[in-house]
Amino acid sequence: MNPEPIELAAALARFDQLWSPRIVTTVNDYDVRVAKVAGEHVWHAHDHTDEFFLVLDGELRIALRDGADAAQREVTLPRGAVFVVPRGVEHRPYAPDGASILMFEPSGTSSVGDRHDAVPDSVDATTGHRL
Amino acid sequence: MNPEPIELAAALARFDQLWSPRIVTTVNDYDVRVAKVAGEHVWHAHDHTDEFFLVLDGELRIALRDGADAAQREVTLPRGAVFVVPRGVEHRPYAPDGASILMFEPSGTSSVGDRHDAVPDSVDATTGHRL
Repeated sequence: MNPEPIELAAALARFDQLWSPRIVTTVNDYDVRVAKVAGEHVWHAHDHTDEFFLVLDGELRIALRDGADAAQREVTLPRGAVFVVPRGVEHRPYAPDGASILMFEPSGTSSVGDRHDAVPDSVDATTGHRL
Repeated sequence: MNPEPIELAAALARFDQLWSPRIVTTVNDYDVRVAKVAGEHVWHAHDHTDEFFLVLDGELRIALRDGADAAQREVTLPRGAVFVVPRGVEHRPYAPDGASILMFEPSGTSSVGDRHDAVPDSVDATTGHRL
């Protein structure tokens, strides 16, 4: 194996589909994925893993609700911000003006989690695509 | 737990020590660490884990050598590039003009690996510090 560095901007330039993560590389049994996003994802939860977000460009918002008390809140991630959605927490990412994001999560993790609302055509239910 | 987003630029502004990673957040049993670097790290290898690098600012170079054939090569990561050093591969990061980097690796991973050359005072042998 002779791995080479990957420029994230070049990786992002290779596809246009929204809410459709591409696997840039792997770290042990984790994926590093990038995605272009705009508009709304769906409410979903990963019951067995945290999910890491880094905003590469634009602004990402994540609505969060905790099943225990049903309280809802929202976080806003400007470019260069990171956030971890704890396992089990229902969340709905959205990006009114679009964004590019990087995610770390175990290989095989579904983009719509283990529990989710109906998935519209605008969201790709996937465990990540090769670049 | 009520986690909030963390802006990486603000996190980096909170310390000055070089080659001394700070743990920004955790993802399951992995750390997300940031470090300021300049000059040379030491040759070292992680025998049980891959190590992920993302260059946030500046340019990082990583010399690599494989024990099997002792061949040495080097990769250059500009800002926005990622690279994974495979487990077991000896490597020496360096940054002639300085850089800020983000790393993703299992919690408890030593900054100088499981095997390393003598560690100079300019390199912090650590499993990461709290911000």
